[in-house]
Amino acid sequence: MRIARISTPTGPQHAIADSDDWALVVDPFVAEPVRTGETVPMAGAQLLAPVEPRVLVGIAHNLTNNHHALPIQAWLKSPHSVTGPGESIVARGGVGTVNIEGELAVVIGAVAEGLTLENALDVVLGYTIVNDVTNVDRNAVDEKNFEGKGGTNYTPLGPWIETQVADPDDVATSVVVNGVERASSGSFNLPSSVAATLVYVSAWVTLHPGDVVMTGAPNTFVAVEPGDRVDITLAGLGTLSNPVAAV
Amino acid sequence: MRIARISTPTGPQHAIADSDDWALVVDPFVAEPVRTGETVPMAGAQLLAPVEPRVLVGIAHNLTNNHHALPIQAWLKSPHSVTGPGESIVARGGVGTVNIEGELAVVIGAVAEGLTLENALDVVLGYTIVNDVTNVDRNAVDEKNFEGKGGTNYTPLGPWIETQVADPDDVATSVVVNGVERASSGSFNLPSSVAATLVYVSAWVTLHPGDVVMTGAPNTFVAVEPGDRVDITLAGLGTLSNPVAAV
Repeated sequence: MRIARISTPTGPQHAIADSDDWALVVDPFVAEPVRTGETVPMAGAQLLAPVEPRVLVGIAHNLTNNHHALPIQAWLKSPHSVTGPGESIVARGGVGTVNIEGELAVVIGAVAEGLTLENALDVVLGYTIVNDVTNVDRNAVDEKNFEGKGGTNYTPLGPWIETQVADPDDVATSVVVNGVERASSGSFNLPSSVAATLVYVSAWVTLHPGDVVMTGAPNTFVAVEPGDRVDITLAGLGTLSNPVAAV
Repeated sequence: MRIARISTPTGPQHAIADSDDWALVVDPFVAEPVRTGETVPMAGAQLLAPVEPRVLVGIAHNLTNNHHALPIQAWLKSPHSVTGPGESIVARGGVGTVNIEGELAVVIGAVAEGLTLENALDVVLGYTIVNDVTNVDRNAVDEKNFEGKGGTNYTPLGPWIETQVADPDDVATSVVVNGVERASSGSFNLPSSVAATLVYVSAWVTLHPGDVVMTGAPNTFVAVEPGDRVDITLAGLGTLSNPVAAV
């Protein structure tokens, strides 16, 4: 099932994909969403970020000086930074390099704490694409990632949630800037599985429906400038496209 | 004006204090909240955390090895950790010391970014008390504060918001555990003013109405154990009381 959040005359609404239409639903977080009966043609529908998380978790997969993997680390990113497909990333000026990072995002569907490797994927509603935009030079001086991550529209999310993904640890990822592929990798290059990531996160922070865990960038970061256009494609999940603007 | 959020038969509602009653209001974030006409007697009213932030900012005021103040640092704490007066802090076991930290909390009343020292306090709705509960030994190994901060009910907030505080940089703070005063200090002992803190935070992360900035603990941290009772009193802001329970 493909779940989107779309703009309607009465405000944002969740919807599930039929062949040519988005069928509005009451609540996307139940096993079988109930349709309202209203539909919106896919052609021309404005897709928004598919959820509005209260908790948005980032994952760091850092290396020692001699390239041994360090234990998984996590941090929280401001949910106010979340934006939808097509919206302009407002690249901060005067802070050095601004990177885009193409990543697999996990959308949580149930209250989750103390997950195990065996049950971790049971709390997943589905998967989408996230662009974890970063003032990367600020991370070098601010180990808490506060200065590097919270800019306006620094977290494009979408275009929709796919609830059926055969293997979240095997999702190919392509990052294209201005029509040129700049990174080709995938979740198979992450040092932690999605399940292991959720075990770590839920050991310390309770997750709720609509929360989002960004699984980390498997060498899918690219420096960008205002005027660039970024297209991040994940196999089976579509393409998340956003322009880059100046402040 | 004193603003609370209280439990009612129809769900949580904001209210403003009259002499003996809480008068329900439609929206506490406007200059002159509109009363619904309903009132709840203060005696017996169940006070909840006065806001539900999406962004909950913590402030670190660290020192160098030779006790010079380092620049201000901030991090994000999970808003799911917020709880109200009287609720049990669920002290995590097996992770070393659990500290409570009594702090002045700033409740944001308007969209805020790029604040200056001159206008920073204009975006403040008011002030309340926060207990920034921390697995302090985890912070020592996790510089992102992810493992130390996100536990269940790790952020008691309340009991209410005071919109009129003569000088937020001069609020006396007392921390009492099991009836014994364990810390006596105040916001006057913080290295950064409230305005300077908001300037720093809003330089990197946009704040919205209902967001909360915890201003940091001016040596008001105390190790606690399950069974303890914590009373944090801030001059003019009341007392925030919570028991400590085991997981």
